[in-house]
Amino acid sequence: MARAASTVEAGDSAERILQILSESARLFATNGYDGTSMRDIAEACGISKSLLYHHFTDKDEIFARIALGSTRELYQFVFDRLPEGATPTERLRAFMVATGEYFQRYRWAWLASTSAFWSDPEQRRQKERMMWRDRYEGLVRTLIQQAIDAGEFRPLDVPLAGRLVLSALNWMHRWYKPDKGMPAPQIADAYFDMIFRGLRAE
Amino acid sequence: MARAASTVEAGDSAERILQILSESARLFATNGYDGTSMRDIAEACGISKSLLYHHFTDKDEIFARIALGSTRELYQFVFDRLPEGATPTERLRAFMVATGEYFQRYRWAWLASTSAFWSDPEQRRQKERMMWRDRYEGLVRTLIQQAIDAGEFRPLDVPLAGRLVLSALNWMHRWYKPDKGMPAPQIADAYFDMIFRGLRAE
Repeated sequence: MARAASTVEAGDSAERILQILSESARLFATNGYDGTSMRDIAEACGISKSLLYHHFTDKDEIFARIALGSTRELYQFVFDRLPEGATPTERLRAFMVATGEYFQRYRWAWLASTSAFWSDPEQRRQKERMMWRDRYEGLVRTLIQQAIDAGEFRPLDVPLAGRLVLSALNWMHRWYKPDKGMPAPQIADAYFDMIFRGLRAE
Repeated sequence: MARAASTVEAGDSAERILQILSESARLFATNGYDGTSMRDIAEACGISKSLLYHHFTDKDEIFARIALGSTRELYQFVFDRLPEGATPTERLRAFMVATGEYFQRYRWAWLASTSAFWSDPEQRRQKERMMWRDRYEGLVRTLIQQAIDAGEFRPLDVPLAGRLVLSALNWMHRWYKPDKGMPAPQIADAYFDMIFRGLRAE
């Protein structure tokens, strides 16, 4: 647990843990939490069960790390990619494209945690995830408000505009097919363009 | 089954069936399919179990009617509300507002069928619902294409623009609180305005 608890691990161990999380997320999203065993995870990673248990005490610890991690890390991932000194409009575009990048890169974790988001039996864990989710939503509202203050956006209902942006991104997992059609960051960019400029002929 | 199979029933019986479907949908959405019994449904409707069985042979028949019905009837409900002779832009607005109305009026059926949409074990039923869903999505694409052809919309990726519209509407059930904030048709109308005009200052 000591090693697994921190987000960044050094060297081989970090690589191994990322591999375990990624394979586990894929298995959870495909076969469900109950349909996935520690043996399945070890096999998918091509490692022994004892090496797996060296990194994680049980399946629930892996799941918690994916579910909580993917909400917290989404926030951090997106926040780190907002260009400093750029206009609010450009920062909102970066917010959307970064979410598309995160979705594409960690799609299994996204899927696994989305299905659990509303039904996590652990109250405390659920609360912590809601907090990161709220910060993520707060970020998009701040960017929209700043764009209005800067005269780039017209005055509008900020929470609703934020929901429009997040709805477009959140619904992607229902229809997105990797290796078919546009990559997710490009979809997010096209959405930004539509939402910013609107559909009307100019 | 004979009475329950048709969408429109006459008089008292039709009212009774609507009540049963509405109470069942609420129970399914709240307690899940497995957590809801025929006894629960009869009690919620204030009727005897034998009267309930007079209308529906079992719980699965009620569920199938809700799940299939709510996809097929959404299409019909929205289609019937597109104003004839109006511009494509006005028809797209009507499409969105009607979806908001349908969502608000049949919210429990919407919630019950959304949770089952991707996991219905009945292949045939799932296929039929996908067909109605595709017609519904086809309708929004047709309206967007007509708006482009009429010079009202700028040329754009029609399937993606359709997805933007549907994402906004489909994500409502995640955050919408009845009796708090705007009614759903008004939210849909505000979304239309944002998507049509865009967020940019004019």
